[in-house]
Amino acid sequence: MKALVYHGPKNVSVDTVPDPKMEKLTDVIIKLTTTNICGSDLHMYEGRTDVEKGKILGHENLGEVVEVGKAVETVRKGDKVVLPFNVACGFCANCERGLTGYCLTCADPSVMPGMAGAAYGFAGMGPYSGGQAEFLRVPYADFNCLQLPEDAEKKENDYVMLSDIFPTGWHSTRLADLKPGESIIIYGAGPVGLMAAMSARIQGASQIFVVDGQKDRLALAKKIGATPIDSKDDKLGEQIRELTGGLGADCGAECIGYQCTNSAGKQVPNLVMNSLVDAVKATGTLGVVGVFIPKDPGAEDKLAQKGQIAFDFGKFWFKGQKMGTGQCNVKAYNRRLKDLIYHGKANPSMIISHELPLADAPDAYKHFDNRDSGWTKVILHPHA
Amino acid sequence: MKALVYHGPKNVSVDTVPDPKMEKLTDVIIKLTTTNICGSDLHMYEGRTDVEKGKILGHENLGEVVEVGKAVETVRKGDKVVLPFNVACGFCANCERGLTGYCLTCADPSVMPGMAGAAYGFAGMGPYSGGQAEFLRVPYADFNCLQLPEDAEKKENDYVMLSDIFPTGWHSTRLADLKPGESIIIYGAGPVGLMAAMSARIQGASQIFVVDGQKDRLALAKKIGATPIDSKDDKLGEQIRELTGGLGADCGAECIGYQCTNSAGKQVPNLVMNSLVDAVKATGTLGVVGVFIPKDPGAEDKLAQKGQIAFDFGKFWFKGQKMGTGQCNVKAYNRRLKDLIYHGKANPSMIISHELPLADAPDAYKHFDNRDSGWTKVILHPHA
Amino acid sequence: MKALVYHGPKNVSVDTVPDPKMEKLTDVIIKLTTTNICGSDLHMYEGRTDVEKGKILGHENLGEVVEVGKAVETVRKGDKVVLPFNVACGFCANCERGLTGYCLTCADPSVMPGMAGAAYGFAGMGPYSGGQAEFLRVPYADFNCLQLPEDAEKKENDYVMLSDIFPTGWHSTRLADLKPGESIIIYGAGPVGLMAAMSARIQGASQIFVVDGQKDRLALAKKIGATPIDSKDDKLGEQIRELTGGLGADCGAECIGYQCTNSAGKQVPNLVMNSLVDAVKATGTLGVVGVFIPKDPGAEDKLAQKGQIAFDFGKFWFKGQKMGTGQCNVKAYNRRLKDLIYHGKANPSMIISHELPLADAPDAYKHFDNRDSGWTKVILHPHA
Amino acid sequence: MKALVYHGPKNVSVDTVPDPKMEKLTDVIIKLTTTNICGSDLHMYEGRTDVEKGKILGHENLGEVVEVGKAVETVRKGDKVVLPFNVACGFCANCERGLTGYCLTCADPSVMPGMAGAAYGFAGMGPYSGGQAEFLRVPYADFNCLQLPEDAEKKENDYVMLSDIFPTGWHSTRLADLKPGESIIIYGAGPVGLMAAMSARIQGASQIFVVDGQKDRLALAKKIGATPIDSKDDKLGEQIRELTGGLGADCGAECIGYQCTNSAGKQVPNLVMNSLVDAVKATGTLGVVGVFIPKDPGAEDKLAQKGQIAFDFGKFWFKGQKMGTGQCNVKAYNRRLKDLIYHGKANPSMIISHELPLADAPDAYKHFDNRDSGWTKVILHPHA
Repeated sequence: MKALVYHGPKNVSVDTVPDPKMEKLTDVIIKLTTTNICGSDLHMYEGRTDVEKGKILGHENLGEVVEVGKAVETVRKGDKVVLPFNVACGFCANCERGLTGYCLTCADPSVMPGMAGAAYGFAGMGPYSGGQAEFLRVPYADFNCLQLPEDAEKKENDYVMLSDIFPTGWHSTRLADLKPGESIIIYGAGPVGLMAAMSARIQGASQIFVVDGQKDRLALAKKIGATPIDSKDDKLGEQIRELTGGLGADCGAECIGYQCTNSAGKQVPNLVMNSLVDAVKATGTLGVVGVFIPKDPGAEDKLAQKGQIAFDFGKFWFKGQKMGTGQCNVKAYNRRLKDLIYHGKANPSMIISHELPLADAPDAYKHFDNRDSGWTKVILHPHA
Repeated sequence: MKALVYHGPKNVSVDTVPDPKMEKLTDVIIKLTTTNICGSDLHMYEGRTDVEKGKILGHENLGEVVEVGKAVETVRKGDKVVLPFNVACGFCANCERGLTGYCLTCADPSVMPGMAGAAYGFAGMGPYSGGQAEFLRVPYADFNCLQLPEDAEKKENDYVMLSDIFPTGWHSTRLADLKPGESIIIYGAGPVGLMAAMSARIQGASQIFVVDGQKDRLALAKKIGATPIDSKDDKLGEQIRELTGGLGADCGAECIGYQCTNSAGKQVPNLVMNSLVDAVKATGTLGVVGVFIPKDPGAEDKLAQKGQIAFDFGKFWFKGQKMGTGQCNVKAYNRRLKDLIYHGKANPSMIISHELPLADAPDAYKHFDNRDSGWTKVILHPHA
Repeated sequence: MKALVYHGPKNVSVDTVPDPKMEKLTDVIIKLTTTNICGSDLHMYEGRTDVEKGKILGHENLGEVVEVGKAVETVRKGDKVVLPFNVACGFCANCERGLTGYCLTCADPSVMPGMAGAAYGFAGMGPYSGGQAEFLRVPYADFNCLQLPEDAEKKENDYVMLSDIFPTGWHSTRLADLKPGESIIIYGAGPVGLMAAMSARIQGASQIFVVDGQKDRLALAKKIGATPIDSKDDKLGEQIRELTGGLGADCGAECIGYQCTNSAGKQVPNLVMNSLVDAVKATGTLGVVGVFIPKDPGAEDKLAQKGQIAFDFGKFWFKGQKMGTGQCNVKAYNRRLKDLIYHGKANPSMIISHELPLADAPDAYKHFDNRDSGWTKVILHPHA
Repeated sequence: MKALVYHGPKNVSVDTVPDPKMEKLTDVIIKLTTTNICGSDLHMYEGRTDVEKGKILGHENLGEVVEVGKAVETVRKGDKVVLPFNVACGFCANCERGLTGYCLTCADPSVMPGMAGAAYGFAGMGPYSGGQAEFLRVPYADFNCLQLPEDAEKKENDYVMLSDIFPTGWHSTRLADLKPGESIIIYGAGPVGLMAAMSARIQGASQIFVVDGQKDRLALAKKIGATPIDSKDDKLGEQIRELTGGLGADCGAECIGYQCTNSAGKQVPNLVMNSLVDAVKATGTLGVVGVFIPKDPGAEDKLAQKGQIAFDFGKFWFKGQKMGTGQCNVKAYNRRLKDLIYHGKANPSMIISHELPLADAPDAYKHFDNRDSGWTKVILHPHA
């Protein structure tokens, strides 16, 4: 089959590779009809991870079931399914509590003591191939496949967002403990930040501030109903306090991660987190879904090399803030978000900028990595 | 009246000062029968804050009502009451949600934008005098006074702990989201850490690890039912993982604060927080009640001067941990903790090492500040 | 002043009565600019309660502060404020936990052992006069007054709904534990049921079913975004299961109360509750804000006379459902709902059918009590 | 193999029956080393259900794995495991949210529309055989088996209680939303009620009241640390209010079910629920784990025949109480309760009155059904 393969920093190509095979009785194989490029794929693309060469990338996957293991009960050949980016067993101590982003069965224990969590096509997240390809093996199919309605094709570009960015954006608002009627500040108007804004709107936020430096992205945020805030504003905290009766936003979301940059384009790893602490009111909660990593040997910043940031901990503590972090447990949300799409209350496909065949993926990686204007979200149709 | 007055770093004395006066119709005056010295008093004592000279210290206060404002309804002369260390109005946007540690009415807005929270006798926490004295003015008496049972005297040394350290220790376990049957690791076996251990025991923790470097304090932790862990152990994380099936403690509490020291006695502000991240399992929550401050010009560490720590944020994020911080909202817990004392299920007075007259307070400060062995908790009886 | 006074069953008139006086230092007096007639006023109007003759009715009140007690701190003369229908002290064991609908200080203990809760102008809810009048005394003003924005007049008809029906409708969805993306079934398209529907929409429900027998009310429900369901449908449960994938609605709200009637117009007190149990899925939660009363001597039904209903408890238990009931704690929601109105995300005034001077109140009671078509919600302007 | 078989009302015998066979690749077979008789077995024994003749009873099962399906990954031959009484798939919409007592895959849909939940050896709960036998087939073994520590035999009589009554008693306190420091009233000192009392003690209740009519059971309640209350007391509500400062217990648990009897021994189905409403304070929550059934044709009471009770709904509503009901989701608790047993914080085996071979089971049913004094809890060792 054809698949997008990683060969080294900024070097990916669509190659012919062996088809995936059934490995366990609980597996299915799906034929991918839509699969996305995600901002976190760029961490690997840029060589900022230790992902092995030859890995097929892609963790935002939707397709049709073409082969079914003998122990699979509810997923049938022909079903249209969308897959959480997390690979999870469904029965470990974490999965049984709904923490499917932290599966103990599927994790790669060599990464760190007590490591939890796995994903398709991702550095450090287990041996699972990605879905920027024609076919994909899905473990624990009864648990991992979310079956879509019969007329799924009509909204396939919406449903595919259930694999990652819609639940991840939503997760940031839940980690932030947003309540209806509250205000929220969201850092980043990339796909996840925009999904966070859409999530906040659906949940009844009274004010949604989205901070970014790119005009096209801020325009999308505005379209969703948010107030765009230019990240170059050096009095951002004051501005937010003025808009919120003097106290700051009720809560905040971090949707950028460790590669955040200042207005001069330099990576400043603590920039967003410290701004977030400042802009959110005392007693507010921060939801951090942008990726931060335990080691980053290639970073300029010395602390960043060790996975540290110079964090305004004193201010954070004095304000009595709370913080939640980490990968989204997609299954915690995907079924209900699917219903919101089905009943016309959510349209995440609105952020798609490019809809391409698989063959164009290497070129799309280049543009997306350059943060080229207008390249917000790329989706691929491997069988188109 | 007599009161313990701050005159400068390591310089306090018991002076004769004017009696407190009723300032508002909602005030009462209480005659203090028991008042404690708290670990956080030492921050002021040591000159590591900007507390003004002449301030009466003391925020752990219990006494008898001797004068009652005309608008006070439920508190009567002769009532025995214990006071939360927080001064709170009861009607602001934070108090109405139970966030009495972040009162907007009583806070000193000059400290920082959006400042919330006030306390008796404390740096940066408003103009309220402390209770290491013979008498104390209590604002918003109906809201702030917790009335004690008729036979309160029998357990007065227990009830006085409701003013701060018992609720604060309890708060650390709630911020850590401890659930019955889970394990918890608590850093610090000072009064708050010990109260955290007692709180965890009452809530049905299956294992309680308490980390400290002082043997006498660890012995108290053991008496409470905890497993003592020597903080000098350089493989602490591994040890905890071995005791918890390989994953780490289910949750953790920080009960030390910014002045934490390594085994050589040097202050290393990020030491405990980073150890906590390591010792707690992925998906676990950290409760941080040890005080961290936004600026610490006197610190050796450059980050600490700005109120920052070099925090293992990548590991924290990768483990998908959560964190809650800040001052305890004492009223969130004090009524139920009082019932636990009354019905014999909690005995916080067990940690008291010294019971002294007010006149001995300066000497007690000296010993307590030296971390002299055996000086765990000092309580004062100003009218004894 | 002029006020609407209860003289006996179906007998109310606008009389000249003494102006309210300040009774406590924590009181304010307000000049009512808008005050509503509520469905629960009809229980008194119809003589189905033991409300005393001479009582001024009215618990949905908004006005301008004209007199301020000496112990009041934050409410000032000239402030425009809206009042929760509950009268609450702010400092009792219930108020301190946010249960302001169950204030222990303001309750009338003669009603039942352990009675909690008070309201303006209401049977069994304490000695407080109502606000269908020119002026009203407000106890514990700092705690009970919600101050409105400077330009409050523009949306005064929206803000007045913060006194009761908007928070009460909202409360039904919170008691029902509605989560975004879920479906909810709401019984009753009266003002509270319509507000429940609006609340569910704001919170991101995927489907909202509203059950009623009156076409004009169902039309309003539809306008809010709900699916109208005719209560005369005798296969209601099946219909809902068909619309929800076979399981039933995720949760449900009861917004009618003990006077619910069958399609023949006969009062059948267990009708709605048993239908709710049937229509909601196993593991779903029911929020019951329609009023049920402990005794109803005037009822035809023998069980109803004792305050009982023949409840399908076996089915309720077998389905593992949960239920929350009771008066709304208005202060739990009113501040955030105010922000939703201010920022244009909620427009509760859309259900107003009549906007009248106080003098027309007796006539309005008659029409409203007759359930005359089109009389959805009456608001009064006593100083218009 | 030998197994306890139901032949009709009050007619069970130990028969030789075919060994269970593997039916699916995800099954295991266990050799039962301990299996209990449960109070809810008596509903079937007495002929108060429509359980089919020939059914093997028994849903409280612990044993050793002797055969393992090819798709099972983590459960191995020789493992000692305890099984939740619920049979659950792990991947349906309810299981993925932790509602394993309401599994949609394993339920018998003929029972009622939207039926959810299954169990071993139980009327209306699917085709699964019980474990009062030498061997048992366990579906979805990776999900349903809780693996025990290596030295499990030492505390096997404690661990077997993890199958049902310890989690079910615990569940009643969670449904009741008990908080540390609160008081709780528990109706029933049978095995579940006693486990509820032990659960409340572990969770830090300040007062635990246990209501029953049998002295030997009340003595056990006292041993656990509860205050025994004689159910014959006709001023029970007043007594509880006196012991709780006038308001009533903070929350309550129902651990008896539809066959509750008055002091004359007559079944009065609404007796306990209405007493519970009276004894619990306004705003308190009720946890109902005693079984109530949708139809009871054999009942004397006419309402009971239809599965209804004459419920004090008016008082319940006026007090603003909440209620949670239903089967326990055992997996929500069993792992943490296992840790409490392992670390010596819980000893549920203390309530065992009889430890017998399987052959004695019919006789034990007789005594247990007669409520013979001293027959609190019977456990069987089929291979002893």
